[in-house]
Amino acid sequence: MAEFPFHILARDGAARSGQIVTPRGDIATPAFMPVGTAATVKALYLDQVRAAGADIILGNTYHLMLRPTAERIHRLGGLHRFMGWAHPILTDSGGYQVFSLSDLRKVKEDGVEFRSHLDGSKHALTPERSIEIQADLLGADISMQLDECVANPCEKSLASEAVQRSARWGERSKAAFGAREAQALFGIVQGSTYPDLRRESSARVVETGFDGYAVGGLAVGEGHTAMCDTLELTTPLLPEGRPRYLMGVGKPIDLVEAIARGVDMFDCVLPTRSGRHGQAWTWDGPINLKNAKFVEDDSPLDPASDCPASRDYSKAYLNHLFRAGEYLGAMLLSWHNIAFFEALMTEARKTIGQGRFELWRRDLVTRWSSSD
Amino acid sequence: MAEFPFHILARDGAARSGQIVTPRGDIATPAFMPVGTAATVKALYLDQVRAAGADIILGNTYHLMLRPTAERIHRLGGLHRFMGWAHPILTDSGGYQVFSLSDLRKVKEDGVEFRSHLDGSKHALTPERSIEIQADLLGADISMQLDECVANPCEKSLASEAVQRSARWGERSKAAFGAREAQALFGIVQGSTYPDLRRESSARVVETGFDGYAVGGLAVGEGHTAMCDTLELTTPLLPEGRPRYLMGVGKPIDLVEAIARGVDMFDCVLPTRSGRHGQAWTWDGPINLKNAKFVEDDSPLDPASDCPASRDYSKAYLNHLFRAGEYLGAMLLSWHNIAFFEALMTEARKTIGQGRFELWRRDLVTRWSSSD
Repeated sequence: MAEFPFHILARDGAARSGQIVTPRGDIATPAFMPVGTAATVKALYLDQVRAAGADIILGNTYHLMLRPTAERIHRLGGLHRFMGWAHPILTDSGGYQVFSLSDLRKVKEDGVEFRSHLDGSKHALTPERSIEIQADLLGADISMQLDECVANPCEKSLASEAVQRSARWGERSKAAFGAREAQALFGIVQGSTYPDLRRESSARVVETGFDGYAVGGLAVGEGHTAMCDTLELTTPLLPEGRPRYLMGVGKPIDLVEAIARGVDMFDCVLPTRSGRHGQAWTWDGPINLKNAKFVEDDSPLDPASDCPASRDYSKAYLNHLFRAGEYLGAMLLSWHNIAFFEALMTEARKTIGQGRFELWRRDLVTRWSSSD
Repeated sequence: MAEFPFHILARDGAARSGQIVTPRGDIATPAFMPVGTAATVKALYLDQVRAAGADIILGNTYHLMLRPTAERIHRLGGLHRFMGWAHPILTDSGGYQVFSLSDLRKVKEDGVEFRSHLDGSKHALTPERSIEIQADLLGADISMQLDECVANPCEKSLASEAVQRSARWGERSKAAFGAREAQALFGIVQGSTYPDLRRESSARVVETGFDGYAVGGLAVGEGHTAMCDTLELTTPLLPEGRPRYLMGVGKPIDLVEAIARGVDMFDCVLPTRSGRHGQAWTWDGPINLKNAKFVEDDSPLDPASDCPASRDYSKAYLNHLFRAGEYLGAMLLSWHNIAFFEALMTEARKTIGQGRFELWRRDLVTRWSSSD
């Protein structure tokens, strides 16, 4: 495997700030990866995503394999060229969306069969096919092993079976991935909220050995405390010298608490999805721009921000755009939210470097707990 | 009135290229005004609109008076500040949308009563109220007189009544507008497709005297030939030294033919509306990006364009975005189309300046007639 160098530049408690070196550019960590589901970060131009501070974005294997298909993207030069993003891309394995979006899925040892949520057509994902799609056809810089995702809550026996199967799929993913110069492969820890299963899953994944380690199966309804507890248990079991990635998380408060527990990478649709629905994330907590109290509020979301969406438009104007159902409302708030999530990462890296992360974290958590 | 200076810089046949000088900046003519219906040019950032070459945009009085209301925009500093556009804005009188969108309208000599298409609430527009909204509350650089718009086809007696009433409303609009240093008022010629009514309406409007003269009541279904004939009759009746504005038009071929007949300004929702529906306007005619023939077409819409939307994205990618229902599809094609309409104006100005407009026009008309 590529073993992209990962330099830890500073630590503060369990939190660390660092740099993942990849052939397509460095990734400053903690890193938030905007989600480009269908080869686009919804309602944003990629130069806005880049300028907001994103070093890496995420693509969804499930969506892309169904439309426009991985083969088509490959014939068009790969995902980077297709969507016009020259920096690193991480793709998920497709597993999570198969379990959350598709119909009539059947999990077998070989892989998972499912029907497309778009047109009902039949498809299959095996560990080998997922790697082929991610690494060979889409050309992801970081691929993820296929894993079995369980619902929350989940009976322990089912969660345990999923841990075993995910471990076997991890080994097959690694074998299929083989040796690559310029691409990396991450393994995934499962185990629901059962401490012994998380321990077992971590051990299996580390034993297999990957370029980075993800924690999956969180942010599925277990709640903030259970998430924090699971992370606190899991991250110390993962290799210190490799990046740790918390999948699908989350709210700013979740990100800050996860960084405090040693997580380096995140992805979530929250900034763009909530942006499309009128919600802005700010240093003072979330606000809904559709709210009547903003109809004549002439202040911008954040006058101190470098992001034009945060700085150059009044809340009154944003309120109007959402009431009128205008594209620009979704465009501006998605942009603002991505810029906020990236600014949160920048601040986290800075405060870790200055040894004041814990103070910064506590201040934010206090502020956000009272505002939420 | 302001009498914004209008310098005619070159002529080629009846076509002219020029410059309208306004306190908020010069407008190169022939000019295409992107339509910012609800205080936003749909799916575009205004810096994209500006960079595409627009010197002036249009705002819709009807939409803005209903939501967020003209009074609210006024309290928020006027339309330029509200939407973040420092350059000239022309507003329509609201009349056209009252006649095309609202319910239960009642035309009286004083003005028109109608119900909002949004919530059924009752409103009224008189010539005086329209001027108050446009010039005082929104702060338009160019306001339009209130006129009575008729359907197409229209019985001659009704069209004649509308001409008379529009002329009286024009006088009242002018009186209400009064003397202003930094704002201009345009009158409107009506008369459906009846030559004698167009002549009469032109005479009345010129007699009243405005800063510029619009031709209304076209592009309402009369067809390209009737539109050209009406223009050919009307523009020579309007003062040579003042800008002529063809309202709500139109397709590129209509613009080129209207320029050939001495029109200086245009507005139309076509580039943004068709952009949202997958249609791109190009030098080779319109194409629909949803078409299956583009699924693996790796070429951009126009590699020679300065506009990133035209140059940096493949048709295959645009096809994918429209099939996936992604915001970015509408964003990119609206941008491309506005850039194309503005490039068309730039080329018209250039060819008029070089005395080869007629050749250019004929070439385009031939090309577009066979492609349409």
